[in-house]
Amino acid sequence: MDKKIINQVINIVGPENVLTDNEERICYSYDGTFKRGIPDIVVFPGNTQEVVSIIKLANSEKIPVFPRGAGTGLSGGSIPQANGIALVMTKMNKIKEINENDLLAVVEPGVITGHLHQEVEKLNLFYPPDPASLKTCTMGGNIAENAGGPRAFKYGVTRDYVLGLEVVTPTGKVMRTGGRTVKNVTGYDLTRLLTGSEGTLGVITEITVRLIPKPKYKKTALVIFDNLDDAAKTVTVVISEGVIPATLELMDRITIACVEKNTKLGLPLDAEAILLMEVDGSDAQTTEEINIIQNICKKNNCRRIEVASTFEEREKLWKARRAVSSAIVQLKPTKISEDATVPRSKIPEMIRRLREIATKYNLNLPVFGHAGDGNLHPNIIADKSDKEEMERVEKAVSEIFEAALELGGTLSGEHGVGIMKKPYLEWELGEVGLEYLKTIKKAVDPNNILNPGKIF
Amino acid sequence: MDKKIINQVINIVGPENVLTDNEERICYSYDGTFKRGIPDIVVFPGNTQEVVSIIKLANSEKIPVFPRGAGTGLSGGSIPQANGIALVMTKMNKIKEINENDLLAVVEPGVITGHLHQEVEKLNLFYPPDPASLKTCTMGGNIAENAGGPRAFKYGVTRDYVLGLEVVTPTGKVMRTGGRTVKNVTGYDLTRLLTGSEGTLGVITEITVRLIPKPKYKKTALVIFDNLDDAAKTVTVVISEGVIPATLELMDRITIACVEKNTKLGLPLDAEAILLMEVDGSDAQTTEEINIIQNICKKNNCRRIEVASTFEEREKLWKARRAVSSAIVQLKPTKISEDATVPRSKIPEMIRRLREIATKYNLNLPVFGHAGDGNLHPNIIADKSDKEEMERVEKAVSEIFEAALELGGTLSGEHGVGIMKKPYLEWELGEVGLEYLKTIKKAVDPNNILNPGKIF
Repeated sequence: MDKKIINQVINIVGPENVLTDNEERICYSYDGTFKRGIPDIVVFPGNTQEVVSIIKLANSEKIPVFPRGAGTGLSGGSIPQANGIALVMTKMNKIKEINENDLLAVVEPGVITGHLHQEVEKLNLFYPPDPASLKTCTMGGNIAENAGGPRAFKYGVTRDYVLGLEVVTPTGKVMRTGGRTVKNVTGYDLTRLLTGSEGTLGVITEITVRLIPKPKYKKTALVIFDNLDDAAKTVTVVISEGVIPATLELMDRITIACVEKNTKLGLPLDAEAILLMEVDGSDAQTTEEINIIQNICKKNNCRRIEVASTFEEREKLWKARRAVSSAIVQLKPTKISEDATVPRSKIPEMIRRLREIATKYNLNLPVFGHAGDGNLHPNIIADKSDKEEMERVEKAVSEIFEAALELGGTLSGEHGVGIMKKPYLEWELGEVGLEYLKTIKKAVDPNNILNPGKIF
Repeated sequence: MDKKIINQVINIVGPENVLTDNEERICYSYDGTFKRGIPDIVVFPGNTQEVVSIIKLANSEKIPVFPRGAGTGLSGGSIPQANGIALVMTKMNKIKEINENDLLAVVEPGVITGHLHQEVEKLNLFYPPDPASLKTCTMGGNIAENAGGPRAFKYGVTRDYVLGLEVVTPTGKVMRTGGRTVKNVTGYDLTRLLTGSEGTLGVITEITVRLIPKPKYKKTALVIFDNLDDAAKTVTVVISEGVIPATLELMDRITIACVEKNTKLGLPLDAEAILLMEVDGSDAQTTEEINIIQNICKKNNCRRIEVASTFEEREKLWKARRAVSSAIVQLKPTKISEDATVPRSKIPEMIRRLREIATKYNLNLPVFGHAGDGNLHPNIIADKSDKEEMERVEKAVSEIFEAALELGGTLSGEHGVGIMKKPYLEWELGEVGLEYLKTIKKAVDPNNILNPGKIF
């Protein structure tokens, strides 16, 4: 990058907020995928005005800008490219307001999601979205990718909690969308157009989210099934009985084997599925709901059911689920984490298709995830240094997407498109849909400054 | 309109689906506001392909198209203009699918919302959005305006239930957005960009909505307060105790007087507020919640509380709320129904400001609405033939919007912008926000064919 421009950037944010050394730039070249891209320069803005100045400079000089939070994304959405600016939002990390009466919080984009959880829960409030990376990921990244998590089944995803945004547009203007009320139909829903737009339509500089009262009680059931279809049927019946668990997680046989190998929790290696179901709410409600769940599991041929009410008991049941991510990467070092999502009734069929794909390409493919909303996480565990294997991975991924779409599902339930799913986007959106997206992008960002090369 | 073009339209949909007589065209000149606009021609497409042909013709001939459902909107969003086509979607009115396993329904835009309610409830399913016009309004109109209703406080608005859309773009191409899964982050959220876009970005030809299990029990409380602040405080405490009523409706003193005058239900004319609260869910949950509500009301100085569990008892309590709309128009014939929305904690202050505005301009201004989400309905009751009064109305409306924005609220919680709130839009969105909206509209609809003159 031109030395003159680097000096202009330093003038805007100060030398302490600019990195140009190779070793330092490498630290901002990654995300949660195996893709890499080293930016020319790394910039940490401290406030909205600095973001405006950076974007104006980039727009006039036609320099691409790659906004990023903690870099935990699973689709390559924040991976920089050469000759661009990595705009790291982590220094804008203040919780500006938690309002108990209006049930909302106002935060800067660099606030860590788990930190917001802690602060609002001290006031008996609740911010439901809980992506697996919540201890490190940022709110800005959560909005940009429309993050989900296990609690999404009952409580919805990030989109359902964003009330308003402050955004710096691709031409460097400050825009406010939405506001402080849940209901708002004034003009197009720019708040939700920006949510999930993967940093391509604006840089998020302030976020207003809706909070809800914290549920007072939780009860948890870990249920073992000999037969996958019985587990899937249990999910359907529980929901049709009107019980919406806060968590409804499924693990398949391979996932169980990986977890057991690493944790020695005593999980049965011959079971086809484990369901982890957690209900929350009032005492009466959770008691009633966990009883209904137990009865349904028994009627649907579960092998064993363990129920927990206390914190300690619950922690024990959650151990297996929490161990999944670290357990499966013991097989091989590279995890390709997909999130193809199908209508709930198609879960058994999808899992069968995934088994076939794993066998066909001789790959490790544990499946776990959010059974309530059909948002499975087929994870291919491979070694990126093994070129031949990675070619098989690529073919398998393509077939996973095909299967999901054939079953009426989607390429991505919560990870986004980024660069990983870009080649497949037209399969789902069609030519007209893709064109409509591009038309919006081109109109809003005529110089293609913001996160170019992502989504399409 | 050119006779040649009328013949082309007739060729597309058949003569039985085109109206050109003056008397007939007048029937499609109105909506729920007092505004009027007579279209040149009224067209009833029967399928997506006919919509495509009409839009292609309109786009090449630069003829404005005004899509409409049942014409119950409250912002002028579907009012046609001279020299345009009123595209009436009411003949595309099939429920195509109700899927009990995947909890979704697929409908054409002309399906009446209340009809969908009935059909899904037969299967113990539930479609929550319940705009007041549900017995006549259409699903297409509900999507276009992002309709709300009393149940929105607990269950969310239309936006929260739309999974996917089939849309004819302003250039006459068929596009599918979203799909059949709750989680979907593939590309920009076009489903929600279209929802609430008031017919300006595409013509909706098919809708997939999420359903939930029908709550099994309901319990209702009608509570009378001497003091408005006590009623408002009750609302806040109920929510912070973790109880989210399915309905939380408020009526002010003037509304109570109107209703009592017309119904003789025995409502107290000296009370400052009535709250109608309804909880739903399981037996245990509703019993627990209605008890909590009763205790909170007593602690917050309610005068009287009536609780209903059976269908008949509940119907009695709902009588007052249901009578509001017809009662207030007994005062004068023209109802200007606003839906300025404020953060919940600002409800008492907003009601005080509304009282001051009513006094200042000497207008009838009953206030009722959805207290849970701050979505009040200040209704000015006037006579549109009284020019001097209508000038005072206009000033009052402007001050209502000012007050809502000053209190951190929005111009519109659920009615949309249409033509009624167009002059005030920039107050809320600012110059940059308005420009961003216009940029999207211009890019997607370069000839400004679809519902021109609405929103901006």
